Amino acid sequence: MTTITSVETHDVRFPTSLSADGSDAMNKDGDYSAAYVVLRTDDPALSGFGFTFTIGRGNDLCTAAAAQRALPLIGRSVEEITGDLGGIYRELQSDSQLRWLGPDKGVIHLALAAVMNAVWDLAARVGGKPLWRLLTDMTPEQLVDAADLRYLSDALTRDDALGILRELEPTRAERIAELDRTGYPCYTTSAGWLGYSDDKLRRLCQEAVDAGYRHIKLKVGANRQDDFRRLAIAREVIGWDADLMIDANQVWDVPEAIDWVRSLAEFKPLWIEEPTSPDDVLGHAAVRRAVHPIGVASGEHGMNRVLFKQMFQAEALDFCQLDAARLGSVNEILAVYLLAKKFGVPVCPHAGGVGLCELVQHLSIFDYVAVSGSLEGRVTEFVDHLHEHFVEPCVVEDGAYRLPGAPGYSAEMFDSTLDEYAFPDGSYWAADRSLHSADQSRTSRVA
Amino acid sequence: MTTITSVETHDVRFPTSLSADGSDAMNKDGDYSAAYVVLRTDDPALSGFGFTFTIGRGNDLCTAAAAQRALPLIGRSVEEITGDLGGIYRELQSDSQLRWLGPDKGVIHLALAAVMNAVWDLAARVGGKPLWRLLTDMTPEQLVDAADLRYLSDALTRDDALGILRELEPTRAERIAELDRTGYPCYTTSAGWLGYSDDKLRRLCQEAVDAGYRHIKLKVGANRQDDFRRLAIAREVIGWDADLMIDANQVWDVPEAIDWVRSLAEFKPLWIEEPTSPDDVLGHAAVRRAVHPIGVASGEHGMNRVLFKQMFQAEALDFCQLDAARLGSVNEILAVYLLAKKFGVPVCPHAGGVGLCELVQHLSIFDYVAVSGSLEGRVTEFVDHLHEHFVEPCVVEDGAYRLPGAPGYSAEMFDSTLDEYAFPDGSYWAADRSLHSADQSRTSRVA
Repeated sequence: MTTITSVETHDVRFPTSLSADGSDAMNKDGDYSAAYVVLRTDDPALSGFGFTFTIGRGNDLCTAAAAQRALPLIGRSVEEITGDLGGIYRELQSDSQLRWLGPDKGVIHLALAAVMNAVWDLAARVGGKPLWRLLTDMTPEQLVDAADLRYLSDALTRDDALGILRELEPTRAERIAELDRTGYPCYTTSAGWLGYSDDKLRRLCQEAVDAGYRHIKLKVGANRQDDFRRLAIAREVIGWDADLMIDANQVWDVPEAIDWVRSLAEFKPLWIEEPTSPDDVLGHAAVRRAVHPIGVASGEHGMNRVLFKQMFQAEALDFCQLDAARLGSVNEILAVYLLAKKFGVPVCPHAGGVGLCELVQHLSIFDYVAVSGSLEGRVTEFVDHLHEHFVEPCVVEDGAYRLPGAPGYSAEMFDSTLDEYAFPDGSYWAADRSLHSADQSRTSRVA
Repeated sequence: MTTITSVETHDVRFPTSLSADGSDAMNKDGDYSAAYVVLRTDDPALSGFGFTFTIGRGNDLCTAAAAQRALPLIGRSVEEITGDLGGIYRELQSDSQLRWLGPDKGVIHLALAAVMNAVWDLAARVGGKPLWRLLTDMTPEQLVDAADLRYLSDALTRDDALGILRELEPTRAERIAELDRTGYPCYTTSAGWLGYSDDKLRRLCQEAVDAGYRHIKLKVGANRQDDFRRLAIAREVIGWDADLMIDANQVWDVPEAIDWVRSLAEFKPLWIEEPTSPDDVLGHAAVRRAVHPIGVASGEHGMNRVLFKQMFQAEALDFCQLDAARLGSVNEILAVYLLAKKFGVPVCPHAGGVGLCELVQHLSIFDYVAVSGSLEGRVTEFVDHLHEHFVEPCVVEDGAYRLPGAPGYSAEMFDSTLDEYAFPDGSYWAADRSLHSADQSRTSRVA
């Protein structure tokens, strides 16, 4: 028997605000960060790694919450935990006192994601498989047992879920073989951050086209004339056969969203992403009706499965962009994939953040192999920075994620990264912070 | 000029789980807690007091988040802050890095509530008025400037809001005089906690009737036979002229909620409260359609104004139970009251928790005087415990809140309470904790 002996948590922050990487109309100066969790066992060769993603201040709150969420794991058998991944999820999730702080949203839910991501990573490592393989080796019953279906039965019953998974089970191997040849298609956001100059935008769009991307995403919503100029540059470089997506990062009220997006219609965007509050199911539905044929995409701030259920029920989304570090790990993500399949909405996961590409590649592969069986309308985000901090970084070639082969959920960071970017005591932050990212000095450390 | 010199935060927890006070089908063993904030100024006679409410573990996270949220206040002028209560709210709320952890929900939003509650308390003290009087002395323009109307314009414009407030402005004084005579009607939940025995339930129902209450609320949803027996006892004691409300605290999926509530129809409940996930706007609407004429009530976990906007748009609620420590203080609460007025839904604030009664009395008075102008269908929760920890506790007589007279938001706790119940170092918790509430030992303190 192997035992979980301790839980390490690390507040890791990267000074991305210095280069405007990740800048958009709502988030002008994010420092990409991870509340990083390591589950240590009494086998020195076996640990589980997971994280949630934030953009700086407050990462300490998620780290502290993760330490609290993970307490029930200490001293437990790895075989017990990884043998009932639905059971341990429900145990951690249902702590009623912590639940009060959500339920299933905000800091405590981000922390649950971090911890359960580490548990799923551990389970995949115990199995000697990458996470996508662990999932595609599970039976429909095992997957449904792991999924969080609570509050969903008016839209998706357990039998519905089993039916979806059973339909594709006999042909899973064919689709794995196909993806092994082709990879899973992705698009790039690296070109279009709002803080980049026109010259940098033009150069990055050209580089993206040259690298084989057929989809390019630009941030919009801060200034309408800027949006016109930047979209014109992008179309000039990528032409009209490639797809152009736009992302407003929640800056608009519903009427303003409708007006602004319609005014950009000449650039023929495939989708408008996050046109308004991520909580506004009915608002997204109203925008979708009004801006057709431009699609509506949302989900990176989709707080939980109940939000997504309603997005589907209200026909509010053309593209579902679930987030692997905001939903309650694979348990809740399974439920959202099953809902999306039932309602016929393609899932294109969000990955603009540190380490999210590493996670979502596994999920997209699983979706194609076991749930949706389709690549139509599906393209997963890829952002090309900070991968160098991961022991098993994702590999993208010709606009597609290659199938990861190493055991686990690809979530492990290098120890040297922790040494350098741990906040506030890592070597980077302990140096004169005024030279680096001034914003983190506004963080109040918990005493 | 007076300056805010420091922000104190206190993690205060009361061992209510020992007596099953506050027990319901979802929350069996809550320890009522407050993440308590004190804004100190360079005038020793002037401080601002506020808090958010939790039920135990994780209160440390809210306390730490409040300290972070409040940092921009330090060194600022009290006159500047209290002279632009909308401006300081928007400044604190829009920290984009902290916003990522919500937005406007979970721990960071509870913390915003705690801090802004202290700011509003400070403003009322500066004015030498109770909060309800501060609000009813504000012009429609001042109130709308303070309100958080972002993301609401598809349902409530600024002009709508001004129109609502202007309509009742000339007659505010009449309604203040009326409430000064009658008080604001309330109901009691003190009788019906799920962990109480039948004998205690019967005795407390009788005491409530004797004390003048015309509305009694019982917790349901753990066991259907228990619900039948307990509701029968309650009706036997209170008769059929008084109103009986039932509260399931989110335990059901939508189909189960409909089936269970219909099976209790013979007891003629006025409302079923929190029949399912608090996030499920469309689910609440479905339950409401199915259980008519039993009303649907929800809101104590209503995370923000966008959730309430949709609840109203979807015609999901008969009673809106906003929470004074979960919404972003008066700024966001103003928006919800205005929305409720526009959509014709009565607001009956949640107050089951420590200190919530002290806060919501001010809000209910303000609503009647300046927004709704009606008491029809309106009754505010009252729970009779833990008031002894407050310097200016609410006063309830004959089933009605008396108008509070002391300056502020009634949020100040006694120093002796902080000394005794601060977690984990107050005298109560520092004593042998195994004799008290074992649950808090599962808290991991942030290092």
